[in-house]
Amino acid sequence: MVRHSLEYSKEEHNTVNRYKHQGIHLTQFPFQCEPQPLTLHPANYSLETIHTIINTTPVLHVSFSPSPSDPFPVILPLIGQMGSFSHPSASLAEPLDLYLHGYVSSRIMNLTSSTSTSSSSPPKGLPVCICASKVDGLVLSLTPYSHNYNYRSAVLFGHATLVEDADEKMWAMELITNSVVPDRWRQTRVPPIPSEMQSTRILKVTIASGSAKIREGVPEDSAADMQNIDNIWTGVLPLYEQYGEPVPGPYNKVEEVPEHVKGYGEETSRGNREYAVEAARKGAPVKIKQRNEDEE
Amino acid sequence: MVRHSLEYSKEEHNTVNRYKHQGIHLTQFPFQCEPQPLTLHPANYSLETIHTIINTTPVLHVSFSPSPSDPFPVILPLIGQMGSFSHPSASLAEPLDLYLHGYVSSRIMNLTSSTSTSSSSPPKGLPVCICASKVDGLVLSLTPYSHNYNYRSAVLFGHATLVEDADEKMWAMELITNSVVPDRWRQTRVPPIPSEMQSTRILKVTIASGSAKIREGVPEDSAADMQNIDNIWTGVLPLYEQYGEPVPGPYNKVEEVPEHVKGYGEETSRGNREYAVEAARKGAPVKIKQRNEDEE
Repeated sequence: MVRHSLEYSKEEHNTVNRYKHQGIHLTQFPFQCEPQPLTLHPANYSLETIHTIINTTPVLHVSFSPSPSDPFPVILPLIGQMGSFSHPSASLAEPLDLYLHGYVSSRIMNLTSSTSTSSSSPPKGLPVCICASKVDGLVLSLTPYSHNYNYRSAVLFGHATLVEDADEKMWAMELITNSVVPDRWRQTRVPPIPSEMQSTRILKVTIASGSAKIREGVPEDSAADMQNIDNIWTGVLPLYEQYGEPVPGPYNKVEEVPEHVKGYGEETSRGNREYAVEAARKGAPVKIKQRNEDEE
Repeated sequence: MVRHSLEYSKEEHNTVNRYKHQGIHLTQFPFQCEPQPLTLHPANYSLETIHTIINTTPVLHVSFSPSPSDPFPVILPLIGQMGSFSHPSASLAEPLDLYLHGYVSSRIMNLTSSTSTSSSSPPKGLPVCICASKVDGLVLSLTPYSHNYNYRSAVLFGHATLVEDADEKMWAMELITNSVVPDRWRQTRVPPIPSEMQSTRILKVTIASGSAKIREGVPEDSAADMQNIDNIWTGVLPLYEQYGEPVPGPYNKVEEVPEHVKGYGEETSRGNREYAVEAARKGAPVKIKQRNEDEE
């Protein structure tokens, strides 16, 4: 059975190519000062891969240029989630929009609305770049040069507009709240009162392009270094997001921590740990087997 | 004894003010859709605070505009560390440069060198924005509107140039390697061979301004909600970076995991956990005491 998976097309902005500037964010992750000599980690344009990284990252970094006269771009740490208001049941492998939540200043509002009403010519909205990065382990090899991270990184380019439609806004608020802790929305005092709705701003990013880069596996060194050095420990120190024991607040009246909080923290931590440990071992089976045989 | 601590001056770019666009990244963190009604978390301009957040964040997000004709800024996930080559013993509370490491494309090289050689007029280098964010806990309150993160976020604005001086480059490589795992540099095959030096690029960012924002503490809700709702669990789910057991690589010949790896992972994880749990409890002592007295 052939499975057809959707990919973002390789446009100028998202092509991961070290001779094109727009995509290089993905080829120059920490320590990977040049493409690794031993292994290539090709860029990934799969919608499912990219959307999954975005949706499981607690903080997205969102960049835009405040004005043509300002040399500095700005980065905002925001919370966000991929979704489709018109097709809420769409999977992560399908085309989706990115909904961002946070305090939206009057300036951003002006930037998003002025660009969206400028004319009928697409694309409308504020051009933004969104990046989500996870470090899954420190890859400690024989030389500083060959050190690396196991990581997952995704980037999206798109145009941001303010969500004006009341139904879409409410839907996005629920989407984002439940992305932090699944099912949290209906466990709280909802619906929001009018003043809460009014002062909440949701940005919707229509995606133009995207890409992802993933590095997983054991350390990699040159054959020359491997033959001559036997006193340097090499391996991976796994790294992952861990949730601690829930801490009840001062006015909490519910004795037992509910399952949607406690269970979520435990399950997510376990999944994160398993991913990081598995990533630390990838690519090593043959050599590990040989070492075991030697010992026996 | 009065302690004088250095702060970044409040310039147009880094001022955290919701009516100025450049600084809003810090006022609109996830869920804080408007400044919280109950508690203000003022921006922090302390060099020590900002530099500490930068130096303890495994991945920095670095943004720049590739060209005036390109609407999209680009975000690069890079590894970086604050330091002073001219005063290596400088503390985190003193003025420092930011050294960034990663694959630097020919395009970035052109951008950093063309702007630096353009004229004698300062500032030289590529204008960049750097953001470091840590989520320390999910703050689960009575309403979606009052949900929040405990977090630490720092931003820097500055100008990036390529490090050309061989001594400074070697010094920065050691600084950055040891920032990943302290003391790692001298545990590896050093110094780098000429080809490694040649293909390693280090960017130095001269800092123009910076700021930080920190949210810690218990949930906060309106008095009206607190009086009427007693079936919603409120509290904080702490979140922190956890290192797992070191996983030896396939060609590792060192039986015992060295202390600089194992000890570092364990100590850092413990420190991270303690910070997140402490942050989850801040601001609650009075009410917690009253509840205990009621029970007795």
